[in-house]
Amino acid sequence: MAKVLTPREEDYSKWYNDLVVKADLAENSAVRGCMVIKPSGYAIWEAMQADLDRRFKETGHMNAYFPLFIPKSYFSKEANHVEGFAKECAVVTHYRLKNDPNGKGVIVDEDAKLEEELIVRPTSETIIWDTYKNWIQSYRDLPILINQWANVVRWEMRTRLFLRTTEFLWQEGHTAHATQEEAVQEAEQMLHVYADFAEEVMAMPVIKGVKTANERFAGALETYCIEAMMQDGKALQAGTSHFLGQNFAKAFDVKYQSKEGKVEYVWATSWGVSTRLMGALIMTHSDNNGLVLPPRLAPTQVVIIPIYKGMEELEKVSVVANEILSKLKALGIRVKYDDRDTQKPGWKFNEYELKGVPIRLAIGMRDLDKGLVELARRDTLSKELVETEKVVDQIPGLLVEIQNTLYSKALKRLNEGTVDVNSWEEFLVEVELGKFMMAHWDGSSETEEAIKNATKATIRCIPLDSVEEDGKCVFSGKPSNKRVLFARAY
Amino acid sequence: MAKVLTPREEDYSKWYNDLVVKADLAENSAVRGCMVIKPSGYAIWEAMQADLDRRFKETGHMNAYFPLFIPKSYFSKEANHVEGFAKECAVVTHYRLKNDPNGKGVIVDEDAKLEEELIVRPTSETIIWDTYKNWIQSYRDLPILINQWANVVRWEMRTRLFLRTTEFLWQEGHTAHATQEEAVQEAEQMLHVYADFAEEVMAMPVIKGVKTANERFAGALETYCIEAMMQDGKALQAGTSHFLGQNFAKAFDVKYQSKEGKVEYVWATSWGVSTRLMGALIMTHSDNNGLVLPPRLAPTQVVIIPIYKGMEELEKVSVVANEILSKLKALGIRVKYDDRDTQKPGWKFNEYELKGVPIRLAIGMRDLDKGLVELARRDTLSKELVETEKVVDQIPGLLVEIQNTLYSKALKRLNEGTVDVNSWEEFLVEVELGKFMMAHWDGSSETEEAIKNATKATIRCIPLDSVEEDGKCVFSGKPSNKRVLFARAY
Repeated sequence: MAKVLTPREEDYSKWYNDLVVKADLAENSAVRGCMVIKPSGYAIWEAMQADLDRRFKETGHMNAYFPLFIPKSYFSKEANHVEGFAKECAVVTHYRLKNDPNGKGVIVDEDAKLEEELIVRPTSETIIWDTYKNWIQSYRDLPILINQWANVVRWEMRTRLFLRTTEFLWQEGHTAHATQEEAVQEAEQMLHVYADFAEEVMAMPVIKGVKTANERFAGALETYCIEAMMQDGKALQAGTSHFLGQNFAKAFDVKYQSKEGKVEYVWATSWGVSTRLMGALIMTHSDNNGLVLPPRLAPTQVVIIPIYKGMEELEKVSVVANEILSKLKALGIRVKYDDRDTQKPGWKFNEYELKGVPIRLAIGMRDLDKGLVELARRDTLSKELVETEKVVDQIPGLLVEIQNTLYSKALKRLNEGTVDVNSWEEFLVEVELGKFMMAHWDGSSETEEAIKNATKATIRCIPLDSVEEDGKCVFSGKPSNKRVLFARAY
Repeated sequence: MAKVLTPREEDYSKWYNDLVVKADLAENSAVRGCMVIKPSGYAIWEAMQADLDRRFKETGHMNAYFPLFIPKSYFSKEANHVEGFAKECAVVTHYRLKNDPNGKGVIVDEDAKLEEELIVRPTSETIIWDTYKNWIQSYRDLPILINQWANVVRWEMRTRLFLRTTEFLWQEGHTAHATQEEAVQEAEQMLHVYADFAEEVMAMPVIKGVKTANERFAGALETYCIEAMMQDGKALQAGTSHFLGQNFAKAFDVKYQSKEGKVEYVWATSWGVSTRLMGALIMTHSDNNGLVLPPRLAPTQVVIIPIYKGMEELEKVSVVANEILSKLKALGIRVKYDDRDTQKPGWKFNEYELKGVPIRLAIGMRDLDKGLVELARRDTLSKELVETEKVVDQIPGLLVEIQNTLYSKALKRLNEGTVDVNSWEEFLVEVELGKFMMAHWDGSSETEEAIKNATKATIRCIPLDSVEEDGKCVFSGKPSNKRVLFARAY
């Protein structure tokens, strides 16, 4: 059969886009830069949300909801924040339309101009800290541990489905603490929550680290991040957690009275992951046949397809299929029996391969007479005949194995794709090979900038587990005591 | 203790607002008409969402996500729709801010003006049908059964927390069908899903019916609705389900080829409920002491409060409390042990009463020595001493009983508050008593309008179970064959 996707080797970027569209995950909408997340894609996002939400609640957070709109003046209150945000934003200036007097549809009613423009939130620190101001008086009101699931808008000039869109879905945690120590602890805790989720659920190994000053969130004192390696060797920032110090508390005048009766500014964190994770998931596991999903995120984990000629055969096959179906359901496995007669088995095989269903069972009379069914793994594309009687028992373990195999494969790629680089010559070679490069850096923004301009590689992070060692900056030759992670990135 | 809420008898509207704010459910934000849904309120909304979402999926729907923004021109495409929507809307005209050259924060960058303004969705029929156009070619592509959880914006001049806010959260189902019959069936099915949810989960009895032409959704051929009676006798529309005919299919040119090879326009429905349900929930069950929550929606179903002097007593009490706690948790009950030493028991009693926790257990040494704990019901405000050994076994049944009691109480109010009205004189009396009035109506918009102008009562619906009978319109005296439901409404 003709492949529906551009092969990865031919054009990785085109392969990605083909896959997102052909696997029915998302598509561009009529509104520039905004996507439609289709049911198949949204179901995966829902699975991510459910698991993350459980982790947030287990660590003591509650969900809440803050306004979509933020008064324009709020962005000017925190000096660094305004530089980083509030520039490429959707601006609401009017609140009414009226009939065009020429009878041609509707036009903006100029009488309904807002006194102060409203910005569609690109992130919610400002409106949330303006709200927290009224919630916090005493140390008894702290900590505040809140998360919000929401849509946000950042006006992007060049967009790519899931990876960079004008509107995207995300969660943003915003916490308030009595002490610096507690806030730092929170920011670090959430980094680990993200890393655990990425590794355990997405089967995507990540490198945990902190950003350099250049790459920090606008308004943060420290930005923690997880970085993952995509199949083409590029890095993708998969989640960030910010220690915001007292910056937003000072900007919005949020103080509390301590146990000792002293009035102090409150300490803050914020942290978020977005639908960008969908892009990370795709570029970690998928292949030229389509999506490959880790079982823990697969909306359908097992699909059963009947192979038959005529209704009599279908009936016989369906007896076995339905028995397997109900037994798997009883085990809590997400399973589907596709007995549609509008499509041929071969079409269905390709369809579920494209959509990344981890396990496919094909049940036909010829095998069935021998007491066998065909089991195919999406991750390895391997097939085997297994005993009809034993197939149900095998599946839970096999789903775990697939999950682990996907993780191991991605980890191997990350390990093999990460190299120590000790000279600028090496750097120039490895960067073209799409490697993660651990190299010494002199700690200056100038050097960081110069390397970026020369190679498009940026410092993804200073890994938390980077060991102290004497060395010389790969670019400037100045002394350095730690290697940092360089790579080109999405 | 001084009551924190204005009594209902004194000022129902003020009582409602006090309750929403004091029970920490929501508050007004700095953005006019937009609310902040606080963690206590959002947790209830999450419980509603989870139950509704399960019901939607059980009836074959999947979730998806469509853009927040809709091009202005889309609203003009469906003639009735443009009249009903797209007037009081948030309009995005620019996509960039820049630094004020005078150094005073940020201003709108006039160079970044959109060619066509974008409207923040007040509802998504237009953008969704524009998308469906590309998804539907053949009868094989139908039905499309999609739901979206989203925020929407309708610029309201007079807002009230949960009941009417500029931005609110909701779900909107949008389905596409090959036949009129199937679409009507879908619209009716979703009405029943809403009614079942309202009655079984919210413990709120509703009247199912259809709207008159005047009150129909803009673009619908039939609007089904559920109407609930609030404690003050006013009606609250709690959910609507629309049969849209082929209106949107025609406006966006969405056709399919039937099995027989004919090209036909697609049939549509849409249906939604919103955070307005939070208002309905409050005004169905709550009292002068605060929120009363049906157990199925209570984030905390049971709270345990220790009564003690000194740490030694607390330790003894905590042994029993923690045993009860873990046993209740094992039964799947949402239970909390509040052993904070920063607040006194009396304060905690009031707090949990205000927040509507269905069952409170107070454990103190004096009772404990007799093998007893105090159990208080939020719905009846009754207290009793129960044997420590037996309390865990009683609770699951008691939660069901509370749920049923709340429903029965609300149903009794609805039944007693609904009267047959046979003359205009009666109508004028009953409307002032805050009744639901079943009266004959001549079927004309003029009469409907005249009654509204005279009494502020509107036709809430033509109940599905309204029986055919000969009668005369309560206002015009003209013949009528059915009673309809009149009431003043939120």
